[in-house]
Amino acid sequence: MDFDPLKELLGPRFSASASDRELHGRCESHFPILAPDAVAYPQSTEEVSAIIRNCSERGVPVIGWGTGTSLEGHALALKGGITVDFSRMNRVLHIASEDMLAVVQPGVTREALNEELRATGLFFPVDPGANASLGGMAATRASGTTAVRYGTMRTNVLALEVVLADGRIIRTGSRAPKSSTGYDLTALFVGSEGTLGLITELTLRLQGQPEGISAAICAFPDIGAAVEAVMLTIQSGIPMARIEFVDAANVRAFNAYGGSEMPEMPHLMVEFHGSHSAVQEQTRMFGEIVAEMGGGAFQWAETPEERNRLWKLRHNGYYAARALYPNAFPLTTDICVPISKLAAAVEETAAEIAASGIPGPILGHVGDGNFHALLLPDKDTPEEIATAKALAARMAERALRLGGTVSGEHGIGMGKLGYMEAEHGAGWQVMGALKAALDPQKILNPGKLVPQG
Amino acid sequence: MDFDPLKELLGPRFSASASDRELHGRCESHFPILAPDAVAYPQSTEEVSAIIRNCSERGVPVIGWGTGTSLEGHALALKGGITVDFSRMNRVLHIASEDMLAVVQPGVTREALNEELRATGLFFPVDPGANASLGGMAATRASGTTAVRYGTMRTNVLALEVVLADGRIIRTGSRAPKSSTGYDLTALFVGSEGTLGLITELTLRLQGQPEGISAAICAFPDIGAAVEAVMLTIQSGIPMARIEFVDAANVRAFNAYGGSEMPEMPHLMVEFHGSHSAVQEQTRMFGEIVAEMGGGAFQWAETPEERNRLWKLRHNGYYAARALYPNAFPLTTDICVPISKLAAAVEETAAEIAASGIPGPILGHVGDGNFHALLLPDKDTPEEIATAKALAARMAERALRLGGTVSGEHGIGMGKLGYMEAEHGAGWQVMGALKAALDPQKILNPGKLVPQG
Repeated sequence: MDFDPLKELLGPRFSASASDRELHGRCESHFPILAPDAVAYPQSTEEVSAIIRNCSERGVPVIGWGTGTSLEGHALALKGGITVDFSRMNRVLHIASEDMLAVVQPGVTREALNEELRATGLFFPVDPGANASLGGMAATRASGTTAVRYGTMRTNVLALEVVLADGRIIRTGSRAPKSSTGYDLTALFVGSEGTLGLITELTLRLQGQPEGISAAICAFPDIGAAVEAVMLTIQSGIPMARIEFVDAANVRAFNAYGGSEMPEMPHLMVEFHGSHSAVQEQTRMFGEIVAEMGGGAFQWAETPEERNRLWKLRHNGYYAARALYPNAFPLTTDICVPISKLAAAVEETAAEIAASGIPGPILGHVGDGNFHALLLPDKDTPEEIATAKALAARMAERALRLGGTVSGEHGIGMGKLGYMEAEHGAGWQVMGALKAALDPQKILNPGKLVPQG
Repeated sequence: MDFDPLKELLGPRFSASASDRELHGRCESHFPILAPDAVAYPQSTEEVSAIIRNCSERGVPVIGWGTGTSLEGHALALKGGITVDFSRMNRVLHIASEDMLAVVQPGVTREALNEELRATGLFFPVDPGANASLGGMAATRASGTTAVRYGTMRTNVLALEVVLADGRIIRTGSRAPKSSTGYDLTALFVGSEGTLGLITELTLRLQGQPEGISAAICAFPDIGAAVEAVMLTIQSGIPMARIEFVDAANVRAFNAYGGSEMPEMPHLMVEFHGSHSAVQEQTRMFGEIVAEMGGGAFQWAETPEERNRLWKLRHNGYYAARALYPNAFPLTTDICVPISKLAAAVEETAAEIAASGIPGPILGHVGDGNFHALLLPDKDTPEEIATAKALAARMAERALRLGGTVSGEHGIGMGKLGYMEAEHGAGWQVMGALKAALDPQKILNPGKLVPQG
């Protein structure tokens, strides 16, 4: 491959070194290293456009890269090519407090944005476990603990700037809160996993910091009781800001990794947002449901520091469980089901994992019907790995059988392409037709998301 | 055109009568009658598929039809063809209370759905002025008075069944509250105005009836004060269920048409939803803002009957203003701007309309930055009509200049195709490429939405 034009364009911000390539050939899950041929670090939309035009002329694959925290291998270079690392496009361009919007470059991480927003009384709610880049979060339609209240990236991205497969730069959406002028291109690119274009700028909705915030954890005698409490809470319309489930195995990992001292039982971790009186009222209503389901006393996180500690525990759930099983082949998977099917989905999954003998903590954003299993077979025992893969496959089948989806938030990447036909039927062919229309050469993140061949 | 195959398929549910054709060649605005060659009344998805397959074989246009209440001529048969009237597909198929979902056929109207939901404690919030069909509302990405709290059709459609241009039937989305599995086809079809496929089934999100509801109207000394009050309210985070602006000219029409006795001044019409204490708190906060902006005392609608009367006034705003000017050529238009630009947008628009001498009541869902002008030039005075068209054009230009969109909810139809390039730039070409991918023969609602030629 002739790198000279890109070297000329980017100088030292273009690298074909072995270490750079390998760093951009990994994700945080179990997939093998699949390195690109080189890595580009653009500083502007125009540079991204020039990179793509150059690759388009030569039919070279182009893969977007945020922070590399994918759990499904979204950004692995299945067919080599150039990885476009957005870490140098990491500026918050504009905060429009009066419109509750921020305009950011794709390399800004969610924590960096919230740091910049600290003085404004506003915050950006979407919080996947990792401190991911906002461009990556949009590309994968990420969500997190607060999606039950504030929505996922689908809801919180108002407008985008995107570079297409031929280098054209387009803008989707506007700063108006809504529009009915044509196809919803913003929604099309959100969740497209880098297969339709590279996102070079995002206009994001912000939320007002609530007057009152209150967070707590609460133990339950068994998984069923905890999940039933979630279902009742959502159905009763309490506007939960967060309602997270963690099973006993996870609690053990939290205690070991994060120094908490929670009883090794299933827990809910919850947060309420609103005026002081609204928070009080929500707390009381939720407390009644918890009592009805046999839940224990709340342990309150009173101060901001205590709350941060609580949610840090949760956000580090993945790393905590991995630390407990350092010799594991980490196979993490998530599914999402209608809320009425949540208890069935979690209990069937937990029972199968228990019967398998493989460690597999379950946790999740259960207010959305979304939960994860982190399957941890021994990496040197092929039978365990095969069993774990079978468990994950059965979770995906269970999600579809119960009217849900094979991924609530982790996405497709390399890991779930095999389920797309089962979930979408002829709709998957439609996705392929859209891809062919916008990227006829198949240079954008090839091998992913749409039907191949 | 050989109608025999469709006659055979549909029997008396296929009509080429002059009256049927003419009925399906109208919308509720000023556009000329553009009738289809015939009208089909399918009763099932399979029949819709058969109709489209037949039309596809012969290259005949196919146009979807709900209740014919478009204000921009979405369903006019610009190039003839077959109009598919969904009025016989009007069943509520399933209400899943525990998941807060309803599955409906496209011909169900929003009022019919809410009638069916009455005993469940749930409701469907999206409420354009007309009692439109839910299929039409999805196809045009409709919104209404409650979008400020509950979102538009973009938010409230969870899944669709769609018949494509070649007759294939696909399902988009699932019953899970969220998903990250591939392109968001649901969002692509919502707002596509019948140009990508015909919607044959919808899965809709429902909302719980709030414990407390409180509605009121309130007069303001001038437009600026009313709109400033809206901006302050939204920016302060009060979760308004409805916050509607009507100008003095509208109030006059309300009084004449609906028998109200409001002072002929600009008004806000508001509604609060929540627990009893939350409603009290919101009311108090909003009251402080109103007082600060010089607004008058609230007139409360205390009972459900009074509330219904109040919102019926508002929903009939369009018909009330038309009744006041029976000889008018009704040219209605809507724009949507960032909330920080709302006062500028409304005041500039009002001043220009006043200077023109043409009646042009302004009203709108101002909590979203969205407002309408109903321009009422005399239908026998070409100069007035030309002036009104120029006013509408300047509104669209104003929306774009202020970072907004040329339509918040009425859509493109025949009326706003000329603004698509200005609003979307190269993104409009992308829309054209998507259309070409899914409807290469251009049989679905031809002449609309995407670049022509």
